[in-house]
Amino acid sequence: MRYAKSSDHFTPLRLFLNRLRTFSCLLPLAAIAASAQPPQVFGYRDFTQQAKWDSVFMAVPDAKLAGQHLKTLTSAPHWASSPEDYATAVYVADKFKAAGLQTEIVPYKVLLNKPVSILIEAFDANGKQLMSGPTPEHVDPKKHGGDPFQDDPRILPAFNGSSPSGDVTGEVVYANYGELADFKKLAEMGISVKDKIVLVRYGANFRGVKVYIAQQYGAKGVLIYSDPADDGYFRGDTYPKGPFRPDSAVQRGSVQFLPIYPGDPETPGIASTPDLPDSQRIPADKLQNNQPSIPVNPLSYKDAAPILKCLGGAESPRNWQGALPFTYHLGAGGPANASTSKVTVHMHLEQDTALRTIWDVIGKIPGTDPAQKDDWIVAGNHRDAWVYGAVDPNSGTAAMLETVHGLGDLLKQGWKPKRTIVIGSWDAEEEGLMGSTEWAEQHAKELNHAVAYFNTDVGVAGPDFGAAAVPSLKQFVREVTKEVPSPKGGTVYEQWKKTQEANERTGDASTRGGPSRFNAQVENDVRVRDLGSGSDYTPFIQHLGVPSTDIGSEGPYGVYHSVFDNYNWFTKFADPTFVYEQQQARVFGLEVLHMADADVLPYDYQLYGKEIVNYLETAQKRAATAKLTLDFTAALAAANRFAAAGTAIRTRQTAPPTHAAALNQSLRGAETALLNPEGLPKRPWYKHTIYAPGEFTGYAAVVIPGVTEGIEAADASRAQTQLTSLADALNRSAAILESAAK
Amino acid sequence: MRYAKSSDHFTPLRLFLNRLRTFSCLLPLAAIAASAQPPQVFGYRDFTQQAKWDSVFMAVPDAKLAGQHLKTLTSAPHWASSPEDYATAVYVADKFKAAGLQTEIVPYKVLLNKPVSILIEAFDANGKQLMSGPTPEHVDPKKHGGDPFQDDPRILPAFNGSSPSGDVTGEVVYANYGELADFKKLAEMGISVKDKIVLVRYGANFRGVKVYIAQQYGAKGVLIYSDPADDGYFRGDTYPKGPFRPDSAVQRGSVQFLPIYPGDPETPGIASTPDLPDSQRIPADKLQNNQPSIPVNPLSYKDAAPILKCLGGAESPRNWQGALPFTYHLGAGGPANASTSKVTVHMHLEQDTALRTIWDVIGKIPGTDPAQKDDWIVAGNHRDAWVYGAVDPNSGTAAMLETVHGLGDLLKQGWKPKRTIVIGSWDAEEEGLMGSTEWAEQHAKELNHAVAYFNTDVGVAGPDFGAAAVPSLKQFVREVTKEVPSPKGGTVYEQWKKTQEANERTGDASTRGGPSRFNAQVENDVRVRDLGSGSDYTPFIQHLGVPSTDIGSEGPYGVYHSVFDNYNWFTKFADPTFVYEQQQARVFGLEVLHMADADVLPYDYQLYGKEIVNYLETAQKRAATAKLTLDFTAALAAANRFAAAGTAIRTRQTAPPTHAAALNQSLRGAETALLNPEGLPKRPWYKHTIYAPGEFTGYAAVVIPGVTEGIEAADASRAQTQLTSLADALNRSAAILESAAK
Repeated sequence: MRYAKSSDHFTPLRLFLNRLRTFSCLLPLAAIAASAQPPQVFGYRDFTQQAKWDSVFMAVPDAKLAGQHLKTLTSAPHWASSPEDYATAVYVADKFKAAGLQTEIVPYKVLLNKPVSILIEAFDANGKQLMSGPTPEHVDPKKHGGDPFQDDPRILPAFNGSSPSGDVTGEVVYANYGELADFKKLAEMGISVKDKIVLVRYGANFRGVKVYIAQQYGAKGVLIYSDPADDGYFRGDTYPKGPFRPDSAVQRGSVQFLPIYPGDPETPGIASTPDLPDSQRIPADKLQNNQPSIPVNPLSYKDAAPILKCLGGAESPRNWQGALPFTYHLGAGGPANASTSKVTVHMHLEQDTALRTIWDVIGKIPGTDPAQKDDWIVAGNHRDAWVYGAVDPNSGTAAMLETVHGLGDLLKQGWKPKRTIVIGSWDAEEEGLMGSTEWAEQHAKELNHAVAYFNTDVGVAGPDFGAAAVPSLKQFVREVTKEVPSPKGGTVYEQWKKTQEANERTGDASTRGGPSRFNAQVENDVRVRDLGSGSDYTPFIQHLGVPSTDIGSEGPYGVYHSVFDNYNWFTKFADPTFVYEQQQARVFGLEVLHMADADVLPYDYQLYGKEIVNYLETAQKRAATAKLTLDFTAALAAANRFAAAGTAIRTRQTAPPTHAAALNQSLRGAETALLNPEGLPKRPWYKHTIYAPGEFTGYAAVVIPGVTEGIEAADASRAQTQLTSLADALNRSAAILESAAK
Repeated sequence: MRYAKSSDHFTPLRLFLNRLRTFSCLLPLAAIAASAQPPQVFGYRDFTQQAKWDSVFMAVPDAKLAGQHLKTLTSAPHWASSPEDYATAVYVADKFKAAGLQTEIVPYKVLLNKPVSILIEAFDANGKQLMSGPTPEHVDPKKHGGDPFQDDPRILPAFNGSSPSGDVTGEVVYANYGELADFKKLAEMGISVKDKIVLVRYGANFRGVKVYIAQQYGAKGVLIYSDPADDGYFRGDTYPKGPFRPDSAVQRGSVQFLPIYPGDPETPGIASTPDLPDSQRIPADKLQNNQPSIPVNPLSYKDAAPILKCLGGAESPRNWQGALPFTYHLGAGGPANASTSKVTVHMHLEQDTALRTIWDVIGKIPGTDPAQKDDWIVAGNHRDAWVYGAVDPNSGTAAMLETVHGLGDLLKQGWKPKRTIVIGSWDAEEEGLMGSTEWAEQHAKELNHAVAYFNTDVGVAGPDFGAAAVPSLKQFVREVTKEVPSPKGGTVYEQWKKTQEANERTGDASTRGGPSRFNAQVENDVRVRDLGSGSDYTPFIQHLGVPSTDIGSEGPYGVYHSVFDNYNWFTKFADPTFVYEQQQARVFGLEVLHMADADVLPYDYQLYGKEIVNYLETAQKRAATAKLTLDFTAALAAANRFAAAGTAIRTRQTAPPTHAAALNQSLRGAETALLNPEGLPKRPWYKHTIYAPGEFTGYAAVVIPGVTEGIEAADASRAQTQLTSLADALNRSAAILESAAK
């Protein structure tokens, strides 16, 4: 009940007045009433009617109901394709139907590995066993209330999605976070990982990338563990006393080569519908672009510690040291006379890798504007979890169901959106964005003119709102958060800004998955991150060019992808009274409502242009530092042209024609024009010229990826070709905006 | 034998030629020979003769002999005032005499506490004993060769110098490094340390300052432990495998309030000679300015861990977390419903605190220039150790004995210095710079015109040369290091620069005792630190105004002030073949030689002036940030006048008169003029207006301390008064330089 106060005092009227105040700046309320002037909202000729619908909507999402959804959804482990997963699909479909959505459960058949038998054991140089695991995830039931979920027999052993079966034995080398720079450093030190088992820690990059690089360097197996420095006791008290990772907790997760392509490994670019003939699938033995060929398994630090502690060889570089209570060594290298204690690990992984059925739930509210009803707004969240998934992803699902609840009440009151709204509850995201990717690939044609994809994954892990978006939608997200009250007082926007400023002061800019994802900051406002990958927006923006956002509320969260990401953890540490669930449902809903009914699509190409110019200038500096001779003239000219067109179209957007459908079509087409049909080098599935997950980062966005990665690889020829493709895309897009601005 | 190669190839002739090359820049050697032009060295009209003496000297210091001195000096624990300490005095005196120095052993009687019985025990909330110690320092004799020195019965239990006896029991509060900011943070969090036992970790400031602050905040006892994050396994392998602190090793050390005054607590400003009547001593019960009134003891992390682990209350601020494998809590505070596990500590300290005899060894080489022979060069190093003291201080003593060996050989060859050289082997430095302070106080009159004090303490802890100096001698130190070959190849200067540049690239600027001590960098050259405190230069520069330097060679050194700082550690990790000992003896010796025989004192007042202007500008910015209204006009004008005078005198120094004694007197007088006879607020013993150990830092220099600490205390009135004193001092000094420059 901590945050009940501000929530209780909330009424639609108060909110409406608050919003008026926000939009009217310093105009007194009385004056507004007298002048009856409608507030100005970008995209709307007259916001009056929308403001009323917003008020009706805002009153509906209910904290208590969100809590009930969450409790039900997380009552059992519901790994994708399991019966319990199907039960959650039915629950979600029922709620969609109850709200009046046209609902269907859409199955796909995708390649998934399920662990049959997992054994990791380690031996010292004398053959003495150091550990044999994985140790089951378990906390002391007698301390701090224990954990009521940990003993469920349906919990799968800790494993990595996309790992093959394998039986390998080899010496261990420690490779820090398994970043490209880490493997390069080992090579510099004369340490080979060829035919070794590489032990890396979670953090800094996407786990699949760790394997992608280790495999290229010749490793025969990979173990990925959670160091207490990154999300354990070093960060704060561990579960169940605090929110951080206890010693036995393991981070599961996919090690698919996501930056090459996501989705069902056998069907890049096409949908793996149940009736897809086998002939259209890539055979399982030809998936080397997307699936590791070496066995990979995650470990807790309880299991990793005895291995690391016994490793001899050279002392690790001092910034590779984690928080375990001994000095980290590499397991190889070092002075000739150094005592080298070698550790041998035996990995025995039996995976049942097979085509399995997964279930998206799709709910639709048909649009009513004849010229624009087919321009969808898609909003989605995945539903499958590694285990219980209270935070990841069902905090998002619970909130989304309350968003749907609100849309349902609007429908009952006669509201009809201009554009069709599609709500997706994706399956098998954890294995590699499978449910969303397959659905997006199936509906590529319709999505080619979808006006937005709104994602949420971790809806609520704590009280700190955060967002990522394409630049054209950054201001749109901010505007929406100005309309929603925060349980902390004021608006979500105000609290977001306050927290971000405080974190900047203390230098704490950590985000899930590693480095900050702000690539340019050309405005003086709260920072909205760039879209990298690791969630379901990827097929929409990076494959199909649907302008996307990703929102959620963050906090200290150390139990990611473990058994302990469950309802008990959630109600102790994330959101005991579900008021952030309510907040999330409201923000998510307003995104949908405003985009569905806007007169003019509220894309900000002015900001987009500024950011791209900034990316290019940064790339130019990096090329100079790397002593690469590249000609940026054409690309910079195109970026400046695009930026100028962005400014011109913005003027047009604020004074739109009576029938804006054609203008909207151009606005949307300008984003499609940023796709390069050939895709990126090495990874043609990724077609966006401005954003992609980094080949060597995975989670973090690489901006102008073709150019940036060409420079990073010191490949001037590739970088120059990519500069040309980028210039072409920007010119195409600019031409569309220029025509529309006339 | 690792560094034997460059050492073996060294010959006086080669060095002489090298040096010529250095001084002559790019002039080919042949050209030098042909022109017979002497190299230009600041301070010398003609360096030819000095270069010859330098060459003779440089050949003498012997690596093997230095190793023998070290072995003998560290064969037993030799705590100040012990019979073993006296034996080292006799050894040093014998070596001085053998070299032809006029030698005497000079006793003083100073107040020292010797532990009789030390007990620290901790209990949890249920009265269960968590630890009882201190655990004897011990490493496994079977691993990595063990340690041959650890079982000597003469080793005193781990204790803090200046701690009173006491028997206190209280709850524990963790206070990070015990910096002023840490205690302020606790107060902000609503946590009182009143009547608590404060547990702090070593590092960041001088240990006596931790106690000084804790006592002001009302603590009833202090425990100071070594966190593995700071010098243990987190930094690297621990002894005997590596150079860092093993779990049982304790950092002993003085907790005297050094920033108030050093030396015998009962005789500030006067010498505690054996015949000093008791009436001239401050009674033992009136020493609150200098001696803690609460018991204080050090702990190993083996002993501290059970206490810290059990502490409940609020989670510590996250940057207070060390490297022990659990989340650090404060022991108090936190949410009302938090589980608060209190830890109670019982400290029982019996100290035998008494006047004890210590022994300085003083060796003299009389000067021969009638006008300048009484202008001493003093060079010194302390000899007493907490236990064996292989690094601290006897690496410095061993090298100094080889310097003396070199001076002796010069004497035998007919060399006679212009100015008198005094070599001091100080006692009881560890207890609070006692031997040096008492001697300096006794010889204040002579030292008023001593031209330099050259200090070394840790002569060799590893291969990385470092130095601190008054600005007037920074370039002097650099010049000397350009003349000495490094075992790594090239000169000491070149390696010093290389290492410093590498550390700057990697962001590693750690120095013993905490923060970097570079307060201004107005030249583009290798950085020489400012003199703070924690070693014997303090009475010379900060009390008496004798221009000082402090040199030594650093490295990974985690066994500071423990049993393991012994000959075994030294020969494994610091300097197995004593070539850095040889290097140290040479650099130290050249400092002495060049200062003893310079025609013109090579003080650089130009740089001094620039640095002071920089300090004032920094202080002005800090005052503005703190919103203090201060008038810097007069002080800045005086600093600029002093800087201009510095430039003018430099010109005069490069073209000196035939008889430079008067010029030299002015040069020396300019430093004396920087003393304020009233001393600093709260601590009149410290008279230098430009440098003092910080009241709240201890080790680190505070520049323009009166002004800076006034600003830090937000005391505008004090700061303004100090600005006036500073301006007066600078004007006095400038006037002297101006007259002399004419």
